[in-house]
Amino acid sequence: MKIAIYGYGNLGKGVYAAAKNAKDVELVGIFTRRPPESVKAPQGVAVYSADALASFKGQIDVVLICGGSATDLPVLTPALAKDFNVVDSFDTHAKIPTHFENVHNAAVASGHTALISAGWDPGLFSLARVYAEAVLPNGSDYTFWGRGISQGHSDAIRRIEGVLDARQYTVPVPEALAAVREGKEPVLSTREKHTRECYVVAKEGADLARIEKEIKEMPNYFADYDTTVTFISLEELKEKHSGMPHGGSVIRTGKTGVNGEHHHTVEYSLALDSNPEFTASVLLAYARAIVKMSAKGDYGCKTVLDIAPADLSTLSAEELRAHYL
Amino acid sequence: MKIAIYGYGNLGKGVYAAAKNAKDVELVGIFTRRPPESVKAPQGVAVYSADALASFKGQIDVVLICGGSATDLPVLTPALAKDFNVVDSFDTHAKIPTHFENVHNAAVASGHTALISAGWDPGLFSLARVYAEAVLPNGSDYTFWGRGISQGHSDAIRRIEGVLDARQYTVPVPEALAAVREGKEPVLSTREKHTRECYVVAKEGADLARIEKEIKEMPNYFADYDTTVTFISLEELKEKHSGMPHGGSVIRTGKTGVNGEHHHTVEYSLALDSNPEFTASVLLAYARAIVKMSAKGDYGCKTVLDIAPADLSTLSAEELRAHYL
Repeated sequence: MKIAIYGYGNLGKGVYAAAKNAKDVELVGIFTRRPPESVKAPQGVAVYSADALASFKGQIDVVLICGGSATDLPVLTPALAKDFNVVDSFDTHAKIPTHFENVHNAAVASGHTALISAGWDPGLFSLARVYAEAVLPNGSDYTFWGRGISQGHSDAIRRIEGVLDARQYTVPVPEALAAVREGKEPVLSTREKHTRECYVVAKEGADLARIEKEIKEMPNYFADYDTTVTFISLEELKEKHSGMPHGGSVIRTGKTGVNGEHHHTVEYSLALDSNPEFTASVLLAYARAIVKMSAKGDYGCKTVLDIAPADLSTLSAEELRAHYL
Repeated sequence: MKIAIYGYGNLGKGVYAAAKNAKDVELVGIFTRRPPESVKAPQGVAVYSADALASFKGQIDVVLICGGSATDLPVLTPALAKDFNVVDSFDTHAKIPTHFENVHNAAVASGHTALISAGWDPGLFSLARVYAEAVLPNGSDYTFWGRGISQGHSDAIRRIEGVLDARQYTVPVPEALAAVREGKEPVLSTREKHTRECYVVAKEGADLARIEKEIKEMPNYFADYDTTVTFISLEELKEKHSGMPHGGSVIRTGKTGVNGEHHHTVEYSLALDSNPEFTASVLLAYARAIVKMSAKGDYGCKTVLDIAPADLSTLSAEELRAHYL
């Protein structure tokens, strides 16, 4: 399949790496809203201005849109769905219904197929939640994130006066995880599920006590959590905290039997060295499905919940039945 | 949806329990090849002779066929697919392609939708394998089963002369599991992946040494494994080993990045108190999907790989997008 990458940040770079390692993918080019000559693209890869994308209509099977959910994707995905099959990683859970409708209208009108909210949450974790609840309706599910870097929380710390740089790790509370896995179906507050570890580089002479207080009291981001703040040097930050690991677990426990006498635990877990590269790999797998669905005339907006697993694979239905079932 | 249960052994009883706890399911009846009056059915549930099923054509949305893979399902599923939408749990991996073709031909000819090989392996574990490989093509996957009771291996021991009863547990080797989870991608022999624990009740005066030797040297079942044999009393067997627990893990580890520089681990695990009740719950969830697909005119034989996750759910697409994605 012929793909285009729209946006070349961490996620776009991850798609490039995944495409390079896939046998069925041809990368038509990287499309950027920056001056194309300013983008350090890998050798042999064409970089175009985003404005040039429309002229490639008919030459690209699917565009992987690698933009941010806050302001980029709500505009880009419906706009690009007018000319192309598209995949995005829109992850603002509360705004998914609105985004879906906008993309759906554009895709149906133009005869394209779009997938929104691919990745691991939303994405693979959503699948884990839906499968587990369908099979064990009498139960409870829990999603734990981490240990991993939250970009949003790291950014929030960086906006505080006196902060030079920062990384924030989201960490599941071990006791909460253990209680869930044991099938106790505990009722857990936000504070009981995750802690937040902040590694902060302060500017010279900054008031560390004030920075720590501002972090710990920041509403939505930190106030509802047990948060630890550790001031470190820029060198230590670069040496020990420059990666983008993440992961987590979706756990459902539930009962079966006429009187609910048998317990079951279903757990889906990810441990990722590179959040953007793994997310990009999910996007590429779903791009394959979208191209197949578009070829069948199945137009409109989809989510991971609407896609049959076989469509993600490079293997035929016969091969999958013989060797993977 | 209106369902029928065909066959009322452990799996059929599990389907009854799952149906009783589902809000969208009406049980038309249990159909049995035994004399109907010999079946101890729950109060208020009609039991019919299997021969009577054909007269219910048009009154049942889907038949859940709860028979054995060795001799029952290869005959039953294609036969019943001539008159009904059907779901089975056919689990002889090597014979799936043939079974698929037989069922597909029957279902297409009659305008019905069939699903074969629902359950957890094949079934949910198959999904885990296909999703993980699609996302991480550069990697290796491993399936570990247990700790749990293997009916087939327990039956094999019971056939040995001098054995009154037996239970066999399949147990993953902890060191193998650990090496896989660490991303070492080890090459593991059959013996290195699982051990087999046998609890055997011998008849009075039986030659225990001979029984133990026959078990440990039994080809296919035990010879390739480190097997332990423990002789216990019938009372102890009933007290400690009467359950049907099972479970296991599908683990894929793989690399991303232009040079494979980042490692990832994807793990899907089940810990089940009752293998037949959980399997039955999977069958019922997929029965829901089959009824939806049949209503859309999507006929023929399907596997879990062909079904979109949303179709398993009682919730609407809108509800799923808003609350589960």
